[in-house]
Amino acid sequence: MRLAVPAPRLGPNASLIGRAGSRALLDTPALVIDRDALERNIAAMAAHAKAAGVALRPHAKTHKSVEIARRQVEAGSIGVSCVTLGEAEVMVGGGIPGVHITSPQVTEPKIARLMALNRTAHQGLSVAVDHPDNLRALAAAACAAGKRLAVMIDFSAGHNRTGCATAADALDLARQARDAEGIEIAGIQSYSGQLQHIATRAERRAQALAQAGILRDVVRTLEREGIAVPVVSGGGTGTFDLDPEARIFTELQVGSYVFMDVDYLRALKDGRNTPPFETALFVQASVVSVNARDYVTTDAGLKAFATDGPPPEPALGAPAGSRYEFFGDEHGKLFVPPGAERPGLGARVECVTPHCDPTVNLHDFYHVVRGDTLVDIWAVDARGRR
Amino acid sequence: MRLAVPAPRLGPNASLIGRAGSRALLDTPALVIDRDALERNIAAMAAHAKAAGVALRPHAKTHKSVEIARRQVEAGSIGVSCVTLGEAEVMVGGGIPGVHITSPQVTEPKIARLMALNRTAHQGLSVAVDHPDNLRALAAAACAAGKRLAVMIDFSAGHNRTGCATAADALDLARQARDAEGIEIAGIQSYSGQLQHIATRAERRAQALAQAGILRDVVRTLEREGIAVPVVSGGGTGTFDLDPEARIFTELQVGSYVFMDVDYLRALKDGRNTPPFETALFVQASVVSVNARDYVTTDAGLKAFATDGPPPEPALGAPAGSRYEFFGDEHGKLFVPPGAERPGLGARVECVTPHCDPTVNLHDFYHVVRGDTLVDIWAVDARGRR
Repeated sequence: MRLAVPAPRLGPNASLIGRAGSRALLDTPALVIDRDALERNIAAMAAHAKAAGVALRPHAKTHKSVEIARRQVEAGSIGVSCVTLGEAEVMVGGGIPGVHITSPQVTEPKIARLMALNRTAHQGLSVAVDHPDNLRALAAAACAAGKRLAVMIDFSAGHNRTGCATAADALDLARQARDAEGIEIAGIQSYSGQLQHIATRAERRAQALAQAGILRDVVRTLEREGIAVPVVSGGGTGTFDLDPEARIFTELQVGSYVFMDVDYLRALKDGRNTPPFETALFVQASVVSVNARDYVTTDAGLKAFATDGPPPEPALGAPAGSRYEFFGDEHGKLFVPPGAERPGLGARVECVTPHCDPTVNLHDFYHVVRGDTLVDIWAVDARGRR
Repeated sequence: MRLAVPAPRLGPNASLIGRAGSRALLDTPALVIDRDALERNIAAMAAHAKAAGVALRPHAKTHKSVEIARRQVEAGSIGVSCVTLGEAEVMVGGGIPGVHITSPQVTEPKIARLMALNRTAHQGLSVAVDHPDNLRALAAAACAAGKRLAVMIDFSAGHNRTGCATAADALDLARQARDAEGIEIAGIQSYSGQLQHIATRAERRAQALAQAGILRDVVRTLEREGIAVPVVSGGGTGTFDLDPEARIFTELQVGSYVFMDVDYLRALKDGRNTPPFETALFVQASVVSVNARDYVTTDAGLKAFATDGPPPEPALGAPAGSRYEFFGDEHGKLFVPPGAERPGLGARVECVTPHCDPTVNLHDFYHVVRGDTLVDIWAVDARGRR
């Protein structure tokens, strides 16, 4: 049994903070946040939610950062959503209120950790539940721990990842929760993951409204039973402007809007519609080899970018029309268009990330820039936490 | 500027070490090593190399673990290969001798760190170089630091990721290295990444031998120039038994053989040929939702498995013929064959990893098991180190 060799505090770029022009000097590959763009995205979503009359509980699985969660809360969010218990532990530990865990916590070690977290969470904690056996186990543990646990009834919303499959199941579970000692019902959660990336807005809207209609029926069913449903939580960046229209959600679990990525930029930018969010997240790479005929080789590959989406999109430092391909664990190929000048050995190139959430999870630090200067470094606090 | 919320020492499973049956109680998703299989793989490659008359410098990018590197060295390896400087820092810091960095280190911050590492590396350190400008920068830095730097001339071997593109370029660079103050030539490196995953052994063999012939000409060209080439380093798990045949490599940079994965198990298992390596690495997941009709939902998704290869392959805990699909950041779908019993809520299922290297990089800890007992936890020391 041995501990890891300790990592350098804040990584190899800490000494560059505040030095003019330091964005071009980073040790790479480096995850980069454009701070102004990040703050505009947070403000735009806050304004949207306010105008639409819904609360925000943004998904911290995207950023896994207490610094960013704090900014979201300061802009009016009532808390954050987390998918893993480890993320929730980090957020509660960082003083973030209103933490909701969107995935059922089922196994014995997870339930033990959840009870420990519930004891320390003085500003609200809730967890999704979708099965009578799980609810029974949670209730028993909460009674043993001596503190009530708030649950949200998870309804599957056609995504069928977690959640009760039918309104009848949701009602049965809600009745059980109402009657269970140690449990209180915080509300209903329903995430329509299958809608988020539909390519046209019209089709997304039609399906989102249809799904919201089903959810409304579930909520009404519970209410007819005398079970209050103060919170209806769901939605995502792909349907951020459609979910409030249905007037059933009381809060949105939007995540990716803080950063945006190649995938969401495409999905939201159909027809005349321009999303009010901009790219705030990049991975900076360096050119490390220039001997190949058709491309230059960079130092950012499969271990610096998520590979489940489209390829990274070259931006700052790459000629317009450049293209990026993965080239193994630690390398990429940058193709520049005919006639354009190739970045030289050691040059920095930044790319828009393909899928922001799993890209962030590959990095330990955010390099926060304003213009061409590194102004701060934030830890990806919950990276790898389960 | 703030530091990450500290992670629990060795993660949430530390208290289970040594408890009989603890493999089935892990907090998940958890990276699992079958210790006996790992040790058999290390022994099999050591025996193969000894019989073939080549040295081993296994690639630590696969495991990023000092514990595993130490076992490889104890079994006869002369050192380890690393692709990132951060991996090399961790290996040198962990007392591993003979560390070779297989990717050119080009930028100013990387060269500064390389010089710092070279000062502390008393048991051998070398780095790949593929460009005159980079060699000049390294030589100047080594002179300034007051300690000579050992380089391997990188020859591209048709892979064209890094390396000199032609024999003439390699010769020019070797001459420059011979004449540069502060530099010594450790040998030549040539990695044929394009060969490793060719599906049939006959085709892999034909191409590997052709490529080795080109490399032999480069080595002979340098030697005719009076430049000694004591080391010729290259090869991978896909060509582990073909590379020695060419009698040009003095050492192999094999990596994935320690663990194996879905991809390599397929590539090496063609025709009558059975590889002498077995699966030693798994990701253990738990079933967290059972409400969907066609599958159960687990807690291991895009952030627990690499997504650049085939899907994970269900093993321990899943009925024969089960199938796995990704279901977002933190979830997977497990389909069992018709008639088979579905694992219940909370049940553990282990999967063979799709592509071992980037899967390991998603985890902080190895859970080392023998049979059904967790016997140790090792840190993934160099996870995320660049």
